[in-house]
Amino acid sequence: MHSPSKTIRAIAAAVALIASTSAVIAQPALPSPEATDPLKLELMQGFPPPPDKVVRLGSLLRFPNGRWGFHHLRELGPTAQVWRGDEKTAAARENPQEMGALAFDDGKGGKTTLADWQRTTYTDGLLVLHKGAVVYQKHYSGMAAHQPHALFSMSKSFTGLLATMLIKEGQIDPGALVSKYLPELKESAWADATVQQTLDMTTAVAFREDFRDPASGIFQYLFAAGMVPAPAGYGGPKTIPEFLATVKKEGEHGAGFKYKTVDTEVMGWLLQRVTGKSYAALLSERIWSKIGAQDDAYVWVDPIGSQITSVGLSATLRDLGRLGETIRTQGRANGRQVIAPAVIAEIRKGGDADKFKANGQAMRAGYSYHNQWWIPHDRDGTFEMKGLFGQHMHINPAAELVVIKLSTHPAGDTSFTHDIDRRAFAAIAAAVNGH
Amino acid sequence: MHSPSKTIRAIAAAVALIASTSAVIAQPALPSPEATDPLKLELMQGFPPPPDKVVRLGSLLRFPNGRWGFHHLRELGPTAQVWRGDEKTAAARENPQEMGALAFDDGKGGKTTLADWQRTTYTDGLLVLHKGAVVYQKHYSGMAAHQPHALFSMSKSFTGLLATMLIKEGQIDPGALVSKYLPELKESAWADATVQQTLDMTTAVAFREDFRDPASGIFQYLFAAGMVPAPAGYGGPKTIPEFLATVKKEGEHGAGFKYKTVDTEVMGWLLQRVTGKSYAALLSERIWSKIGAQDDAYVWVDPIGSQITSVGLSATLRDLGRLGETIRTQGRANGRQVIAPAVIAEIRKGGDADKFKANGQAMRAGYSYHNQWWIPHDRDGTFEMKGLFGQHMHINPAAELVVIKLSTHPAGDTSFTHDIDRRAFAAIAAAVNGH
Repeated sequence: MHSPSKTIRAIAAAVALIASTSAVIAQPALPSPEATDPLKLELMQGFPPPPDKVVRLGSLLRFPNGRWGFHHLRELGPTAQVWRGDEKTAAARENPQEMGALAFDDGKGGKTTLADWQRTTYTDGLLVLHKGAVVYQKHYSGMAAHQPHALFSMSKSFTGLLATMLIKEGQIDPGALVSKYLPELKESAWADATVQQTLDMTTAVAFREDFRDPASGIFQYLFAAGMVPAPAGYGGPKTIPEFLATVKKEGEHGAGFKYKTVDTEVMGWLLQRVTGKSYAALLSERIWSKIGAQDDAYVWVDPIGSQITSVGLSATLRDLGRLGETIRTQGRANGRQVIAPAVIAEIRKGGDADKFKANGQAMRAGYSYHNQWWIPHDRDGTFEMKGLFGQHMHINPAAELVVIKLSTHPAGDTSFTHDIDRRAFAAIAAAVNGH
Repeated sequence: MHSPSKTIRAIAAAVALIASTSAVIAQPALPSPEATDPLKLELMQGFPPPPDKVVRLGSLLRFPNGRWGFHHLRELGPTAQVWRGDEKTAAARENPQEMGALAFDDGKGGKTTLADWQRTTYTDGLLVLHKGAVVYQKHYSGMAAHQPHALFSMSKSFTGLLATMLIKEGQIDPGALVSKYLPELKESAWADATVQQTLDMTTAVAFREDFRDPASGIFQYLFAAGMVPAPAGYGGPKTIPEFLATVKKEGEHGAGFKYKTVDTEVMGWLLQRVTGKSYAALLSERIWSKIGAQDDAYVWVDPIGSQITSVGLSATLRDLGRLGETIRTQGRANGRQVIAPAVIAEIRKGGDADKFKANGQAMRAGYSYHNQWWIPHDRDGTFEMKGLFGQHMHINPAAELVVIKLSTHPAGDTSFTHDIDRRAFAAIAAAVNGH
């Protein structure tokens, strides 16, 4: 490990305003949402912008730069088109409700409102679909409706969805070893891990995902992916496949859940190897071109063109709503079956709750993680995509509800907003159903 | 000037297989079009591609890498979305004709065919529209219909079109000095140049555009734009605005035409300053969202987000057809006026033929250059966009014809194909009109 550069230290400091996954979640002192509004700050405004208002890839994770950058990611580096296809956009029914004043318990003995929750969690976009109709839709931070927003680890659930489709079609054997498909990983942690263990993140891999520590594996990964410029003198892997081959086993596969971006990256690579198609092409062909998407999505690529399947996607709020609604309605969109119901049932059944608990996920008590989705195992049968800095797709089948929330929270790991986020989703569910 | 790196020498050598603008245009020995087909070579195929099949930004201009890279440019660096808008795609009428066998004089005493011309000029896409209907459309090199292709200097004509629109609306005074709008250029060549001189490239600027010479200004420009990685130790400007401010005057403005990419870049900057909108936003708002475009286009951006308005655009073949047809039909598209007829009339009237001739443009005898368009002043009233490596938009009002040709010719400057290209366009015009 090379000594971390100033950039890396700054990123680590910024991302880790808080990054605790422990049981005690305390909200840190946070910058003012209003004072850090990118329009007010005039980030990247003017031709050219003043030097202190320029956002570059190397300064993207230094808050508040993401408040401009997360909906302009393609302007900072290489990306591949996830084509929307040649079909007509699926028209969105509208049934608008003014929900900003909706009040709910804040879990600390007080009340908050939907407007305040959006503000204090640095929301860039919020979309609520009830029974398929748009009941609430807001964009902030100067993000236009046609601008894709970074999804970070929500990308994992896209990869898991595609993988589940291919498993149900018999193209991938979940019980097979990863190295059957990717012999390049024969010397790595995944040599004797199964596909299912990799999908469920129960592999035993010497990889720490700690944004507080510039020496942790996640930074090596980001350097290799080209998403964070490597410090001067960096001599490690410079592509994702090269990086994955260096990651070693630590412990026994299948013993317990541990959240690891690299597991997804292995799955993304495997999908491409099996289908002979790039991730972007596969996602377009299987999903994006069939849900009536209005705009192309895109995916970050590494220096040799490897598409970043764990944290690399960007998509618009409205198209994420179309996907969420497709999944909520058992995979139907535009009058046809896009995703088999068995795929959605597989995801919703969740993973092993004991293995999940064993990793100390007290905050997400009762959850499991299966095929790259978060499963709360709650009364309404909700299931979720989640991403760093506050990205959410929340699907509530019982309430016939889909909520998409895109954000630029100053703290990367927003564990401490988990409780209030869940309360907000529940309040929305009650409100749209007239409770 | 720093000593050129190996990369730069390789680029210079590759681009300049021939780069003559002199009267005597000899065709160089060229690589086989079939043997350099990117599908056959398996460029960027596999996950990951073998090291010798990887195309990176630094190797893009080393033929045949562009045969993959010119329709995957966004995968190599930062780009901004030129949004297609929220309207429906304008349906393209189809009236297909098999034109490949169409024979015409090759100008050297023999015959060639439309198929052979496409092959020997390394065509990636050819689209022929007659009276608004698609009569011929081919994609090669693995380029899908929805993949934007690099337009190189065709971008200049987009910038010129937007500038002409703003001039006709009174937002820009063509007689004013550039420095009135861009005080940053008060110490540069453009301090006392007019907008019109800049648009017509009759400014007197110490800038050589010689792809054979790594010391010439065009390489400094490409380094600043981030389109060609700068050699180690490069200490020059690293953004486009910074670069333009360093370019000095040489001679007297208005004396004669000299083709200079930097003139366009100044105009692109000026458009953004006057409108307060980015080039991509302006192009989307004024044109791309109003012609029924099917896909987003995109534009390359420099390290501080400056959009490259001279050579930075990529767009799909079919959407270029929609734009060409809009211009051919006096600016009407989708039943409304998108571009004022006066704008198109201004472009078509052309520039000063004597000033054009004075620069030794023997190959293009009779042409002029006006508002960033090439005007042949021929019987049919044709007018054209042109770009490095064989990019063309040819509009023939008399024949009610639009031809778009996108290519990856091994020689950057395809002057020596000028005669055969014009013959091909004329043969197409005759054929579609039954002559």
